[in-house]
Amino acid sequence: KNLSKFQKILLMTDGSVTTLLEIYTGNPVKIKTLHQKIIPATHEIANKLEIDVGDEVNERIVLLLDSNENPLIHARSYTPIQRTSEGFREDLLRADVPIGKILKKHRIEFRRELNDIWEEESDEEMKKIFGDERLLVRNYNIIHRNKILITIWEKFPKSSFV
Amino acid sequence: KNLSKFQKILLMTDGSVTTLLEIYTGNPVKIKTLHQKIIPATHEIANKLEIDVGDEVNERIVLLLDSNENPLIHARSYTPIQRTSEGFREDLLRADVPIGKILKKHRIEFRRELNDIWEEESDEEMKKIFGDERLLVRNYNIIHRNKILITIWEKFPKSSFV
Repeated sequence: KNLSKFQKILLMTDGSVTTLLEIYTGNPVKIKTLHQKIIPATHEIANKLEIDVGDEVNERIVLLLDSNENPLIHARSYTPIQRTSEGFREDLLRADVPIGKILKKHRIEFRRELNDIWEEESDEEMKKIFGDERLLVRNYNIIHRNKILITIWEKFPKSSFV
Repeated sequence: KNLSKFQKILLMTDGSVTTLLEIYTGNPVKIKTLHQKIIPATHEIANKLEIDVGDEVNERIVLLLDSNENPLIHARSYTPIQRTSEGFREDLLRADVPIGKILKKHRIEFRRELNDIWEEESDEEMKKIFGDERLLVRNYNIIHRNKILITIWEKFPKSSFV
């Protein structure tokens, strides 16, 4: 594909995206929580996470910002509450901490399983964040104890990190 | 420090180094095994891995090469045999497969714990591989079930990836 090396790294890595952004920008990344709520799983989410419809799921939408508050990456995640330990859940709900750092703090062993990478047009919500840009998107799962602990969609403009 | 972004990524990432090199070079990375042997742990290795002196350890030294067989990274690792499953052990001893790919194949959940990053002069062995270059080095552990499954030293010339 016609992407920069850093775009490819962001899309393909099984390591921490926050670490990559901090190296790229040369500064700590900030987190802005746009939305955070425990919801009953819809059919679609239940299917994705391999849980029952109606099971509690934490829905979290955050922006990773550079030190000047410019948005770098939009991340939406779903976590089945029943699969979280108490300490992990507290940190997750408190928000404003990147998921990679929460996993590290709680010394959680996991693997990252990349599901898919694609391009899409911005919808109205994304236009408010990044402007009218084509987006690069990936979806991956954090697997812990052989189950999906978190599924995450990360989006950034195709014009970023070039 | 005065390093390139890609050098920093290689030294700091908690993701697969092979994936990073494949994006950087644009081609699959090759592995050349320089040394592979099960040895009794010395005092130093036992201490590092938190096992007993004399316990069996797999010592493995490989080069990651680009598609033209140029050396990219030198990696030396130690794995306590008692902490490996049969399938993982077979693949590890067969060599010529990157450790990240072996972990992925066996769906092993783990965390990477970075111990240290430093610079050093090349010794005679390293000069034969990379020439007389200053080296960037890191040591990290692969932690699985709260124990060190692998400790790895990765080295590459400070003049690479600039």
